[in-house]
Amino acid sequence: MKTGFIGLGAMGRGMAANLIGAGHEVVVWNRSPGPTQDLREKGALVADSAAEAARCGVVASMLADDAAVREVLIDGGVIDAIPAGGIHINHATISVALAGELGRLHSARGVHYLAAPVFGRPDMAAAGALNVVCAGDASALERVQPLFDAIGQRTWPLGTDPVRASVAKIAGNFMLASAIESMAEACALTRAHGVEAADFLAIMTQTLFAAPAYQGYGKLIAAARYEPAGFPAQLGFKDVGLALEAGDDARVPLPFAGVLREALLEALAAGGGDRDWASLAEIAAHRAHLDAR
Amino acid sequence: MKTGFIGLGAMGRGMAANLIGAGHEVVVWNRSPGPTQDLREKGALVADSAAEAARCGVVASMLADDAAVREVLIDGGVIDAIPAGGIHINHATISVALAGELGRLHSARGVHYLAAPVFGRPDMAAAGALNVVCAGDASALERVQPLFDAIGQRTWPLGTDPVRASVAKIAGNFMLASAIESMAEACALTRAHGVEAADFLAIMTQTLFAAPAYQGYGKLIAAARYEPAGFPAQLGFKDVGLALEAGDDARVPLPFAGVLREALLEALAAGGGDRDWASLAEIAAHRAHLDAR
Amino acid sequence: MKTGFIGLGAMGRGMAANLIGAGHEVVVWNRSPGPTQDLREKGALVADSAAEAARCGVVASMLADDAAVREVLIDGGVIDAIPAGGIHINHATISVALAGELGRLHSARGVHYLAAPVFGRPDMAAAGALNVVCAGDASALERVQPLFDAIGQRTWPLGTDPVRASVAKIAGNFMLASAIESMAEACALTRAHGVEAADFLAIMTQTLFAAPAYQGYGKLIAAARYEPAGFPAQLGFKDVGLALEAGDDARVPLPFAGVLREALLEALAAGGGDRDWASLAEIAAHRAHLDAR
Amino acid sequence: MKTGFIGLGAMGRGMAANLIGAGHEVVVWNRSPGPTQDLREKGALVADSAAEAARCGVVASMLADDAAVREVLIDGGVIDAIPAGGIHINHATISVALAGELGRLHSARGVHYLAAPVFGRPDMAAAGALNVVCAGDASALERVQPLFDAIGQRTWPLGTDPVRASVAKIAGNFMLASAIESMAEACALTRAHGVEAADFLAIMTQTLFAAPAYQGYGKLIAAARYEPAGFPAQLGFKDVGLALEAGDDARVPLPFAGVLREALLEALAAGGGDRDWASLAEIAAHRAHLDAR
Repeated sequence: MKTGFIGLGAMGRGMAANLIGAGHEVVVWNRSPGPTQDLREKGALVADSAAEAARCGVVASMLADDAAVREVLIDGGVIDAIPAGGIHINHATISVALAGELGRLHSARGVHYLAAPVFGRPDMAAAGALNVVCAGDASALERVQPLFDAIGQRTWPLGTDPVRASVAKIAGNFMLASAIESMAEACALTRAHGVEAADFLAIMTQTLFAAPAYQGYGKLIAAARYEPAGFPAQLGFKDVGLALEAGDDARVPLPFAGVLREALLEALAAGGGDRDWASLAEIAAHRAHLDAR
Repeated sequence: MKTGFIGLGAMGRGMAANLIGAGHEVVVWNRSPGPTQDLREKGALVADSAAEAARCGVVASMLADDAAVREVLIDGGVIDAIPAGGIHINHATISVALAGELGRLHSARGVHYLAAPVFGRPDMAAAGALNVVCAGDASALERVQPLFDAIGQRTWPLGTDPVRASVAKIAGNFMLASAIESMAEACALTRAHGVEAADFLAIMTQTLFAAPAYQGYGKLIAAARYEPAGFPAQLGFKDVGLALEAGDDARVPLPFAGVLREALLEALAAGGGDRDWASLAEIAAHRAHLDAR
Repeated sequence: MKTGFIGLGAMGRGMAANLIGAGHEVVVWNRSPGPTQDLREKGALVADSAAEAARCGVVASMLADDAAVREVLIDGGVIDAIPAGGIHINHATISVALAGELGRLHSARGVHYLAAPVFGRPDMAAAGALNVVCAGDASALERVQPLFDAIGQRTWPLGTDPVRASVAKIAGNFMLASAIESMAEACALTRAHGVEAADFLAIMTQTLFAAPAYQGYGKLIAAARYEPAGFPAQLGFKDVGLALEAGDDARVPLPFAGVLREALLEALAAGGGDRDWASLAEIAAHRAHLDAR
Repeated sequence: MKTGFIGLGAMGRGMAANLIGAGHEVVVWNRSPGPTQDLREKGALVADSAAEAARCGVVASMLADDAAVREVLIDGGVIDAIPAGGIHINHATISVALAGELGRLHSARGVHYLAAPVFGRPDMAAAGALNVVCAGDASALERVQPLFDAIGQRTWPLGTDPVRASVAKIAGNFMLASAIESMAEACALTRAHGVEAADFLAIMTQTLFAAPAYQGYGKLIAAARYEPAGFPAQLGFKDVGLALEAGDDARVPLPFAGVLREALLEALAAGGGDRDWASLAEIAAHRAHLDAR
């Protein structure tokens, strides 16, 4: 299938490569030209503009945040360039407000909008093993299912309203942050009583919490290894902000998210914005002054 | 091995039965006589007093909380009845303060004290599939390992200080409560945006959070089925209190535990102390007035 | 002094009237024409546009929030209409980000910008008894001091950076919200133990907390009288949001503000956005299910 | 009136001196003999035991906490020594649970129990300017009113149940802690935006918050002067714990108290237990790493 692909960051480049690998004809575009070279070698066509990629009729985008989506897709004319009857697949994690706005904008132009955020980190994107949460027109989803099969291990449909996929992704990231903070506090508590984080987490992540989220972040906390960041604290702060904002919009108090916000803000104040958000374990330990004992 | 077993509640009766099933000679005692009958039929001897069970030399106890431990074991003379050189295995979830006190009391009498709290609910106790966290004298642990093999799928040694096993159990329960609250808030948020809890949790508990803790409680939340309680909110409130108390003792701030405390207290104020602590999902939904929308 | 005055809401109309009363020549403008009539009778000139009011050279504005400031002053051309060397006095409570932006916009045009938010409710505005916090050019402040003397009981200079006055106003409102929440929780606690809020608050507000903030809101809580609102919960929610946003910008965790956010959001979810924010006392009582006892 | 007085700490010695000064015949007792000497010189009789002081028929006590009350009054036999028809005035800040227990113990012995906690710091105790909150039998209160007049500026009766006075004192101290924390966060926020704490607090404590609580603690925060402590952080931690405990007993969630608990615990972990609890301002600043900027 001929497909435009906009946004070749750490996630997008792996996703685009998997589309090419699955035999699709992919027209890529990226704000900075660097990442396009590698994909050209893999067989991608390189568009001169985001709008050119959009004219493929089916175009996927994987941009960093609301601001980038607004700049590139809305202000940058991408949405206007998609032909009527075309499909825009948005893989980015964006606010529910913007998800709703994009749905209305596309609908007004006769373009199908699929909100399709993904769960998984860059290594899973490279391996084509993402989990794709999707909301939007069912027939459009059916048409692009081969693309999702190329980038993900499974697609999780959530109905037609794009806001649903957006909020599910936001809520999922909130659950990840909560899992990290709960390990962070638990390890501060056990460490203060003489138990090493590695020993405590070995029990937890092989029994009740034997799941990727806990095992992955548990390994970082046990080793106190927060650089290079798989997911930096400043992005975590942004994502917790998306949860709180979605809560504001719908009048849903989220006390755990409030605690996460403070903890991540403390991490940022400490200069740790570029460290992995698993470094919340350091914040919890610091509050108890464990390193000074 | 001849073993006393004190405390035949929902957990203890399954554990004692598995000891019998593994060929050990078990002398049981329970405050109320009801549960002893069934175990007698399985082959247990029934002691007339807790002290009699303690005179076996090796005695395990599975009591409800600090108060019961203090009443039966300390004030009730059990500790004094264990012969020097004997072993007391304490499976209960108790405060770190009491764990330390028990360690000192036994040590003064030449009795080995093994703090051996377990992870697992009554069905896992019945199936001999508990996870046993153990701290205490290594040779004593070696002696009673056959008992642990009968009740558990695995033993997790944590060194010699009984406080370590106690704090690990408390921290583990805190992580469970945190997992529930994070699902509770995430489901309130997604539901307010049109996504059913069952749909959202299906994604989460089959991907990033594919672990027993999330799958078990996720199922209850998806079905809004909180009675009968597997683990009632009032016990959850007590256990979060143990975490906060352990944090007090060691000067460790635990902001998530503070939120859990408020949420469980609200559940209790609503008359829900006997419902499963997964009903925190109702509290989160109630704060957002989702049922009134 | 010839002065434009933009924004004649509950606060602005009293302030403008006091300027007239002190003998200043006031040119008023309001989005909806209603409030201008009364001021015309008091001696005001009524401008046809906000820009016309701005052309007075000295112009004060009292608009509702960031959005109104942006729409009327920036997008609506008011800033461009102020002659070079003129002075713009902004009395509104706005974000620190917008305060900084306005400072730069005016500076680029050679206009003095005075951030001059006020403490006091409509009755104090009508009585000319506001407290005016002011940051900006010292000579400009000196020029308009007669205006401040007409609307306020005292001016509190905070230096030249307009952000300073903005953040002081935001922090002050945060302290008000905190005072309310602390009374709310304290009254829930005492009421649950048999003490009426009126009895408890009588002690507090005549002793340690004998200050306008506590006496004013304490009276509302003691009487459970939240309508009509002096300051509605939804504005309180906005203002706590300004504090959190200012904290984000400068990396300052504000845990009390996080709690206030959740409590006000719960009030909004309950349909209480138009009630006085002292109704946080109801939220605290509701969490404890006091009305159901 | 002949009166026993038990407990001559920083508060008690001033109170006893004022009783003597008002012409009452005072029989004092203190655990350590030091403070008795000074009172003897002022005219007090010194008892050989707490029980001897109790035999005066009217006995007041001002002990540090629940543990001291339990040790001296209950286990130490003071309650048993008060003659039937006598009056025990308890000025200490104790838990609601213990207040209820003491009420029942006295009632069973035919002794009137007046719970009479006081608001005010040692200088106010010395000046006879305390505020006395009192609950208990009305005729007993009438009898000892002359004593209250000697130690306090005003008596605030709260009915007959001693729990009421206890909870009012606890809730009042919680409001004090909340006032401090709200200044602490507000000052961290304003300081991060260039406003000195002294400048910001000058505005607040002369306008909306012109009350003793804010002026007293505001002065400490503005000067960053936390030693010697007027009221040390570790006592503040204990008192916030009393509020949370009272909330537990009556099922009242207190989210602000939860935040205070974490903040004070962080102060204790930092080694600041002996500093004034106004040093919460340092904790708030530290979270934002303001000193490292």
